[in-house]
Amino acid sequence: MFYHVKDLQFNARVSRPDPRFARVMLEAFGGANGELKSALQYFVQAFSCHNPFPDKYDMLMDIATEEFGHLEIVGATIQMLLGKVNGEMKDALEDTPLHTMMSGKSAKEELIHQAFTNPQFLVGAPGSPALTDSNGNPWCATYVSATAELTVDLRSNMAGEARAKIGYENLLQLTDDPLVKETLGFLMAREVTHYQQFEAALATIQPNFPPGVFQTSPRYSNLYFDLSKGEDARGPWNEGESTQLKEQWQYIEKPLEEVRSTNGLLDRKPEGTDRSEKNIAKKEAHLSKERSGQVLSATPEEKASWCKYHQ
Amino acid sequence: MFYHVKDLQFNARVSRPDPRFARVMLEAFGGANGELKSALQYFVQAFSCHNPFPDKYDMLMDIATEEFGHLEIVGATIQMLLGKVNGEMKDALEDTPLHTMMSGKSAKEELIHQAFTNPQFLVGAPGSPALTDSNGNPWCATYVSATAELTVDLRSNMAGEARAKIGYENLLQLTDDPLVKETLGFLMAREVTHYQQFEAALATIQPNFPPGVFQTSPRYSNLYFDLSKGEDARGPWNEGESTQLKEQWQYIEKPLEEVRSTNGLLDRKPEGTDRSEKNIAKKEAHLSKERSGQVLSATPEEKASWCKYHQ
Amino acid sequence: MFYHVKDLQFNARVSRPDPRFARVMLEAFGGANGELKSALQYFVQAFSCHNPFPDKYDMLMDIATEEFGHLEIVGATIQMLLGKVNGEMKDALEDTPLHTMMSGKSAKEELIHQAFTNPQFLVGAPGSPALTDSNGNPWCATYVSATAELTVDLRSNMAGEARAKIGYENLLQLTDDPLVKETLGFLMAREVTHYQQFEAALATIQPNFPPGVFQTSPRYSNLYFDLSKGEDARGPWNEGESTQLKEQWQYIEKPLEEVRSTNGLLDRKPEGTDRSEKNIAKKEAHLSKERSGQVLSATPEEKASWCKYHQ
Amino acid sequence: MFYHVKDLQFNARVSRPDPRFARVMLEAFGGANGELKSALQYFVQAFSCHNPFPDKYDMLMDIATEEFGHLEIVGATIQMLLGKVNGEMKDALEDTPLHTMMSGKSAKEELIHQAFTNPQFLVGAPGSPALTDSNGNPWCATYVSATAELTVDLRSNMAGEARAKIGYENLLQLTDDPLVKETLGFLMAREVTHYQQFEAALATIQPNFPPGVFQTSPRYSNLYFDLSKGEDARGPWNEGESTQLKEQWQYIEKPLEEVRSTNGLLDRKPEGTDRSEKNIAKKEAHLSKERSGQVLSATPEEKASWCKYHQ
Amino acid sequence: MFYHVKDLQFNARVSRPDPRFARVMLEAFGGANGELKSALQYFVQAFSCHNPFPDKYDMLMDIATEEFGHLEIVGATIQMLLGKVNGEMKDALEDTPLHTMMSGKSAKEELIHQAFTNPQFLVGAPGSPALTDSNGNPWCATYVSATAELTVDLRSNMAGEARAKIGYENLLQLTDDPLVKETLGFLMAREVTHYQQFEAALATIQPNFPPGVFQTSPRYSNLYFDLSKGEDARGPWNEGESTQLKEQWQYIEKPLEEVRSTNGLLDRKPEGTDRSEKNIAKKEAHLSKERSGQVLSATPEEKASWCKYHQ
Amino acid sequence: MFYHVKDLQFNARVSRPDPRFARVMLEAFGGANGELKSALQYFVQAFSCHNPFPDKYDMLMDIATEEFGHLEIVGATIQMLLGKVNGEMKDALEDTPLHTMMSGKSAKEELIHQAFTNPQFLVGAPGSPALTDSNGNPWCATYVSATAELTVDLRSNMAGEARAKIGYENLLQLTDDPLVKETLGFLMAREVTHYQQFEAALATIQPNFPPGVFQTSPRYSNLYFDLSKGEDARGPWNEGESTQLKEQWQYIEKPLEEVRSTNGLLDRKPEGTDRSEKNIAKKEAHLSKERSGQVLSATPEEKASWCKYHQ
Repeated sequence: MFYHVKDLQFNARVSRPDPRFARVMLEAFGGANGELKSALQYFVQAFSCHNPFPDKYDMLMDIATEEFGHLEIVGATIQMLLGKVNGEMKDALEDTPLHTMMSGKSAKEELIHQAFTNPQFLVGAPGSPALTDSNGNPWCATYVSATAELTVDLRSNMAGEARAKIGYENLLQLTDDPLVKETLGFLMAREVTHYQQFEAALATIQPNFPPGVFQTSPRYSNLYFDLSKGEDARGPWNEGESTQLKEQWQYIEKPLEEVRSTNGLLDRKPEGTDRSEKNIAKKEAHLSKERSGQVLSATPEEKASWCKYHQ
Repeated sequence: MFYHVKDLQFNARVSRPDPRFARVMLEAFGGANGELKSALQYFVQAFSCHNPFPDKYDMLMDIATEEFGHLEIVGATIQMLLGKVNGEMKDALEDTPLHTMMSGKSAKEELIHQAFTNPQFLVGAPGSPALTDSNGNPWCATYVSATAELTVDLRSNMAGEARAKIGYENLLQLTDDPLVKETLGFLMAREVTHYQQFEAALATIQPNFPPGVFQTSPRYSNLYFDLSKGEDARGPWNEGESTQLKEQWQYIEKPLEEVRSTNGLLDRKPEGTDRSEKNIAKKEAHLSKERSGQVLSATPEEKASWCKYHQ
Repeated sequence: MFYHVKDLQFNARVSRPDPRFARVMLEAFGGANGELKSALQYFVQAFSCHNPFPDKYDMLMDIATEEFGHLEIVGATIQMLLGKVNGEMKDALEDTPLHTMMSGKSAKEELIHQAFTNPQFLVGAPGSPALTDSNGNPWCATYVSATAELTVDLRSNMAGEARAKIGYENLLQLTDDPLVKETLGFLMAREVTHYQQFEAALATIQPNFPPGVFQTSPRYSNLYFDLSKGEDARGPWNEGESTQLKEQWQYIEKPLEEVRSTNGLLDRKPEGTDRSEKNIAKKEAHLSKERSGQVLSATPEEKASWCKYHQ
Repeated sequence: MFYHVKDLQFNARVSRPDPRFARVMLEAFGGANGELKSALQYFVQAFSCHNPFPDKYDMLMDIATEEFGHLEIVGATIQMLLGKVNGEMKDALEDTPLHTMMSGKSAKEELIHQAFTNPQFLVGAPGSPALTDSNGNPWCATYVSATAELTVDLRSNMAGEARAKIGYENLLQLTDDPLVKETLGFLMAREVTHYQQFEAALATIQPNFPPGVFQTSPRYSNLYFDLSKGEDARGPWNEGESTQLKEQWQYIEKPLEEVRSTNGLLDRKPEGTDRSEKNIAKKEAHLSKERSGQVLSATPEEKASWCKYHQ
Repeated sequence: MFYHVKDLQFNARVSRPDPRFARVMLEAFGGANGELKSALQYFVQAFSCHNPFPDKYDMLMDIATEEFGHLEIVGATIQMLLGKVNGEMKDALEDTPLHTMMSGKSAKEELIHQAFTNPQFLVGAPGSPALTDSNGNPWCATYVSATAELTVDLRSNMAGEARAKIGYENLLQLTDDPLVKETLGFLMAREVTHYQQFEAALATIQPNFPPGVFQTSPRYSNLYFDLSKGEDARGPWNEGESTQLKEQWQYIEKPLEEVRSTNGLLDRKPEGTDRSEKNIAKKEAHLSKERSGQVLSATPEEKASWCKYHQ
Repeated sequence: MFYHVKDLQFNARVSRPDPRFARVMLEAFGGANGELKSALQYFVQAFSCHNPFPDKYDMLMDIATEEFGHLEIVGATIQMLLGKVNGEMKDALEDTPLHTMMSGKSAKEELIHQAFTNPQFLVGAPGSPALTDSNGNPWCATYVSATAELTVDLRSNMAGEARAKIGYENLLQLTDDPLVKETLGFLMAREVTHYQQFEAALATIQPNFPPGVFQTSPRYSNLYFDLSKGEDARGPWNEGESTQLKEQWQYIEKPLEEVRSTNGLLDRKPEGTDRSEKNIAKKEAHLSKERSGQVLSATPEEKASWCKYHQ
């Protein structure tokens, strides 16, 4: 159950209307890496944690709720950046036709002219934010990543926070309003905060690599196929030891020849690794029971209820 | 700023898992007339009311916040309806292949089999809700209607609540779980409640028809064109008095002849109405000033801040 | 079966080309509340009325057909507003490169420059309308609301016409071409007309509130939850009598406490209402038979044919 | 301006309800190659032909109008195939829960059960067609191809009719209702008809290959790059004479070597062709003037009106 | 299996940055008729040809692979057209706010200003291409046509190449950079090439009209319905002989009367054709066996493997 | 420039047709975390690395190219899983109507029946893969994350590989075909490989946290707001030291009080951190120059060409 208070988490202010910046700021409102996406992503991920992982549920709901508040901060800022557009458009009898506007005579005309970079600000919901990105694409749930596997979802969240952070960094360069910069700086800082929160939560789940139960075959996990020819480069991604499984990278310089000589890799033997199919099977069997057990033991057979009420 | 409490507004419960019903219940979660749509629609509409219409802002935010809570109720119910799907899918080494499943031998297989009516419940986010409708279409912001004109938005909300109500009515017929029916009944009742709240709010804005400032020409507002031929019907929509403008309906039986004889309606004179262009112009001038004045007087020229903090 | 005549319902004219206004006018062509949406919405709703409600079928098809004609009027206006763009773009060897264009020297360059506000007017279908909104979003069937329940659909139509009306009101403020204003004025007037037609049709179905069969529990239908805190407002939406069910609003100032003390509302008793579960059940039973009977009696068991042909 | 008559162009009938076939038949209603797509594609293409090519305008509007009628035939068939679903769903108090349904006891349950293959037939618009394809994807204007260049659009139409034809061929194999087969056979035949009409219209525009004005360089137009290695095949698409420009195909067996030895093809000289840059330039200059002239001469400078009214 | 070489098929170059042209060139990258669409369309169509039609498989994969290379050429050109935008945006501390930018003082500001016509170039992926069209619509698989019937797919490909060709023709008119024009000219020429390749391949499949197996009824295939009234035109599409079936067009001037007098066309007899139901049935039976036989004989019952490896 | 060889990277095989599994395997073909998404994501990210970071460019193109090959493996497997569906559907005259099918008499009918779980396998492209996910949603470029900032993109890639890995883990549980399991196992292993490659590449860029230039204010980066009340949990995400910036978490138990007492956080001072605004500004200034310098120095002012050709 949600509550709302009319105070914003951060004191959002603008120095003067700026419809052009309002347009780009839509990225943070209804864009692919905006606040609505973050809020709903954590909110949706939380459902499968509710019973088996109440601590992660609490964290996800804490952050989801904060993001709904950030969505409100962004919307409020856009509304203020659009200034008098809404009011002017309601003055329906005073003509501000396009032809006159473009010569930019008066303050009103200038405002309308600026709003025109996104016509939805004039003909859709004049002077008000919309759930789109800066190009007018409507927000879409495909932006949300949720797999009901925490070690995957927390990584999606870290990557998502990284994208959100760079989004605010880009926005900061496109305005010179110091009050707006303050708000953007706060929101940017919070993405960096959340990133670290998700990272800390991931570390409490061990092992977490590879995510899920299956450990993957040692035959294929350390092969690097040189498939883009010309100016080939070497680095820790194709020589030395791999970051997590600690195997030796096998650089396959002639992929076609390799594939043809191994019956499509079927005949290839593991190299550069101590991992064996046997060890892996054992680990998988263990993890399979452990991970499903955690969830199943917290799932009632029937007569489920979501919460208890303490008076 | 939002708060969240882990108690649900309504005591959501399910008697037993039922993945097939979980699929159709997605309509109320990520569907076109579901709870997310309602919540975000009122939330977005509220921004342009914040300054000029604080009472409507309060109402929109009260209801938006309740709808976020309903979204949580629906998601919790779907999660419970999916029962052990998430846990079983994590038991990665126990095979429940498709071929075996379809013969439906054991309880586990039956559960997975049922979940298969929506494969996202198995391969996307096993055993967990997703922001889609029952056919898997991702939620999309085009579902949200917001025009920054309250007399329009409140009507959109009434229609939206009517659609949501009939959606729950349809769902109620597709389950026989009495606990789920209780929850659906509560949610359905709230749509009926909200409908009346929006209707009451609309009535406080006068005049509210036609919405907006322009009153529309008396020449065209009472014409009924009989454009679908055969088994023509008459009713209060094309004879007698019109509902709001109280004009006499003019039934145009031969639209082509009418259009040709009036130079494409340009030469047509008003009939069946007392409204005159002159009266209309006067009313429009008055409304134009009044409505824009309400908004402009509440919009700061510069140095805008969204809220005051009272310690 | 449809017929087409090459005369438009209204004598659409433009004084001079204006590609910038053509862009915003796309809202009425391929936008979420444009003419295509109206036409297809009524057309789709009509199918389930064909047998049981032939009078409503006639009305829906009359208006749907008119809206297809309005779509044509809007498209024709956009085509005229784009003037010579199509012809100039076919003059492929005369360079009008971007760099030169932007300095706006000649009439041709100015035209192309203006068209550039929507690049689809140059690279998609030069000088011709497209089924998108002003931001280039392709028209999408999610705009269409149809539930196969007339008391809901007619409300969706009223709200849709209200949105379309305000859309034309916004457009009217963005052009100073008197001929275009005439056409916009006509189209705007028709939305007001259709609104009243749908309202009249709704009134002939009794009872129509709540829409559908289920009457909703008296325990939940008059509760107002104060969920957005700060500057709370009171009005007819949360005090006094509700608009349709004529119950007394119950204002719940402390929602969390209420929920906790009623076991998630399960233990709450009806207040402020004369409606009883018993009366409601009786009314539902009656309506259930009546409403399904109307449809079933008009639906053939088998050997269905859609129409009779009278020679 | 459109007219509608309640008689269908073809006598659509069904022998008995069949919700499962109704689902797949949605392809022809709201699918990517369905009737709505055809109708709107020709309708949109027609606008740029209205002034300069009135004969093509007439043809496009004749066929567009027929396709709207076909859309109606398909919708009527789906409505009849859904039989009593709408009526049964309005019988809200008679439970037909999912659990009971799946055992398929009674006729009613069987009907609802079948409808369940597309849950929208139950929870969206019970027993009524929707503007989606068989998987529930909403119809989208990206299906429509229109470029404002007739020699391209007519080819898009031929390809579109071919896709629609094979669509009906596939549908015909999925029903054994002889009445439905009759209707599908009629609709399929009309796609074949329209294909030939567009082909005939294309042939009246000369030259029509390549479409547009530019003739393309003789250096690149007859090269065949063998880029997929293994089991290479030869055929008239890479040996002998090209179909339209009548050049000799140049088979480039070693694309990388070719590209490296010609400075990225910049140094390559024309081979296997009599076409010269000079001839081409002349042809382009001629076509450029001719094609733009046809359009420009039919486009008024200002004071444009779309149609004349003859009383 | 794919290989990549870092040399482009064509020596793509630009004379100077031009973000505005980069925006429109997105049409060829992530637009509905761009290179990604072509590449994926042929790639997807190829799967069903792999076994039964290895020569067509080879051709489709040759061209698909070339189109992936063209996608790379277009992306590289856009990247070069965006010049220093990426680098400048990383200079995060040097302010280039919107207000200053619009007065266009310095080179850097001018560049950013130009990039602003598509805000994604600044806030999404600064200075880098995105998989959208020029209006920012994300690339979508609905652009791809594939029906698993070669005589249809090859026609879709011809139409697609025609649209791609005119797309480049339009782009060529919007830049004056001679180096970019060279690249566009090469890409345009290749569309014309591919068109002819698909046309040649189609001709090797006989008969190919109508596509598929069913030959369509002689009663309906030569009827022309005059459904758009006024300024009716005659041409080879409604008089004389049809292009493929060589029937005489039957011009139906009064469609409603025709339909009413033939019981919805059911009673109509074939006219203007020598084709008979009997001949047609024979041809269909033959084709049905032949076409399915070609595919079935190349499809293993079980133990299928996709390729053989030759060492 | 791409090459293709007809040998697959892995020897894809299936034991027997299984259209139901083909449906869910579409997730890996045209799904949000499928192979097409991976291939295009790395391909698009590569453009902005081409000049300044040739080693990362090489890696991204190596992996992108491998993913295109994986897309081919998945498509080939789906094609084999669909077995004779394509061939049977071409046998157009042998009826396999739905009614008969559902009783499942013969092998052919069973096959068609199974294919029906995704009707596109019958009416779209019979017996052939389509670029959709398992619910039929068309692939969409919004799945692709690319920001032109490597330290962000590499994190998006790691998260994407994690999602792809768990996707294959889910698929493995839904089939019992050992040959298909082999292929899925290979593909799953490669996701784990790529994850480690991206992680290694990220580590070569220092500092990489926070991503981008701005370091974020010390006032806001270590605050944890307890916004979801009830059963609050503590863990390393809200107590102790933060993972990257090594600050002490500040747990704000009463967010509203905090916000009100700090004028919306404006008056709050840094706590639990050694980072100072001054140090941060210095670091930002340094990074700003360094990072932009890397890119700008590799970007030609004009006369750009993408590659050199070595003969």
